[in-house]
Amino acid sequence: MKLLAFAKRASMTFSCCLRPVLSTTIRSSSSSSSSSDSVKWEGGVSMVQGASRGIGLEFVKQLLQNSEKGHVIATCRKPNEALGLLSLKNMFAERLSILPLDATNESTIEASAKSIRDRYGFLNLLVNASGILSIPDVLQPETTLLKVEKSSLLLTYEVNAVGPILVIKQHMWPLLKAGGGTGTDRDVAVVANISARVGSIGDNRLGGWHSYRSSKAALNQLTKTVSVEFARRKDPVICILLHPGTVDTDLSKPFQRNVPEGKLFTKEYSVQKLLGIIDHAKIQDNGKFFAWDGQEIPW
Amino acid sequence: MKLLAFAKRASMTFSCCLRPVLSTTIRSSSSSSSSSDSVKWEGGVSMVQGASRGIGLEFVKQLLQNSEKGHVIATCRKPNEALGLLSLKNMFAERLSILPLDATNESTIEASAKSIRDRYGFLNLLVNASGILSIPDVLQPETTLLKVEKSSLLLTYEVNAVGPILVIKQHMWPLLKAGGGTGTDRDVAVVANISARVGSIGDNRLGGWHSYRSSKAALNQLTKTVSVEFARRKDPVICILLHPGTVDTDLSKPFQRNVPEGKLFTKEYSVQKLLGIIDHAKIQDNGKFFAWDGQEIPW
Repeated sequence: MKLLAFAKRASMTFSCCLRPVLSTTIRSSSSSSSSSDSVKWEGGVSMVQGASRGIGLEFVKQLLQNSEKGHVIATCRKPNEALGLLSLKNMFAERLSILPLDATNESTIEASAKSIRDRYGFLNLLVNASGILSIPDVLQPETTLLKVEKSSLLLTYEVNAVGPILVIKQHMWPLLKAGGGTGTDRDVAVVANISARVGSIGDNRLGGWHSYRSSKAALNQLTKTVSVEFARRKDPVICILLHPGTVDTDLSKPFQRNVPEGKLFTKEYSVQKLLGIIDHAKIQDNGKFFAWDGQEIPW
Repeated sequence: MKLLAFAKRASMTFSCCLRPVLSTTIRSSSSSSSSSDSVKWEGGVSMVQGASRGIGLEFVKQLLQNSEKGHVIATCRKPNEALGLLSLKNMFAERLSILPLDATNESTIEASAKSIRDRYGFLNLLVNASGILSIPDVLQPETTLLKVEKSSLLLTYEVNAVGPILVIKQHMWPLLKAGGGTGTDRDVAVVANISARVGSIGDNRLGGWHSYRSSKAALNQLTKTVSVEFARRKDPVICILLHPGTVDTDLSKPFQRNVPEGKLFTKEYSVQKLLGIIDHAKIQDNGKFFAWDGQEIPW
């Protein structure tokens, strides 16, 4: 989604924050989950980062609709303005928590991690869905090298590549490690970073979109690097990269003209396919880059 | 090489700058070269960016030694402190020009391009050799995700990926287009961006070094993107990526402990191999990623 990432610190006083913990006695202050937690959060605990609209919002919606039990933490920079999330909150009440988080501002990530640890004790899924392609009057995908600007390269890298990695880091990683597949049909917790086929270097035949392509190639490399460490530590966590296809969202809206007929997906269809990949993810999928149809994409 | 990239503007008054043009009458102010230029600069005109030490300095040295005619423009942030270059200047006088250029500061790139255009009118080769891996007390290659910092990711990206692309952009691109293979044995001008095997996502088996790996994967993607545009415009210019091997330079010095015997190359050997690849580069090599031994590296 289009996202101004000028490190505006999200308000930490937002009223939709996680409620105070009701049953502190059943949980230690450590990040590992207790069996009481596992029962309490049956159906699993998922977090969607960048959830105010587009694919992120659709992930939240389907995660809530697909199960009668699973809990979802939706984060975005400005929860007060996230009307789609607020409307879901009315429908799903206790099963949805909304937290302020700006992936480019580590203190907001830390605060969210603390809230999640205090309430749930673990995570089974982290979807990093935040991302930028264009911002009116600030950032436009480049049609030629002549239009490449340092500021655009850096801003896009910060939001699309650096942000998701900071979210995982020491903040959500221990929660995912504590969660593993507990309460879900999987053996492992999953980090799903939303990438894009245009991030593939091997598949780059059209050129252009320098900032975006570069940021997604970097996200792919960073995710692969993280996956190697997950595997080495034998954590019950895997990292995968997902290409949602060209989806009818605010992000793609200005660039839909040349999409062939039948190739512009609805959010509903794309996220349904991506959740299928996540639900069936196995330890050997760690570090892989999948398109919406389950096909692997070359680097 | 280790390089502080805090956008310190290199002094534009440095005394080793290109001499004033002596024969303005033989050249128009346009960027295209005249036949008089071609004769004047027989042996070709090469530019090495990031030439103060390490691989960049060795490129300058071998380019001067390998031919009796070729001209070389060596750029670095602080020519006054570049003792290796100053020593070469004593030996090769007129055939070597030294210019101040900070790849993260576009105005210094523009100024260099103007000097090169005024004196030579074209370029046949641009080697982007600047890069950072570590800076004492500032930047250390990460051994775990827990040590990843936003500031390190951004700084490394700016120097290793953004810098080389800004140097090509509208500044050196027209000069390379004007030069093509003129005065050399090649049909095309070459942009050689120094990458690294650890930038390969497919080949990432050890993890770690997040900032460096990410920046080099991004450089690979940006270079590929540029190569697509060169091809589309049918410019007589190609872009390639080169992995020099692990070379005994200041950059690798702190990390040479685990290099297997026989795998730590001298600068002389590595650059000799890389120049062999450049000298034989053809239009169909555009956008490829070669190791020192000529083998292609997966993305």
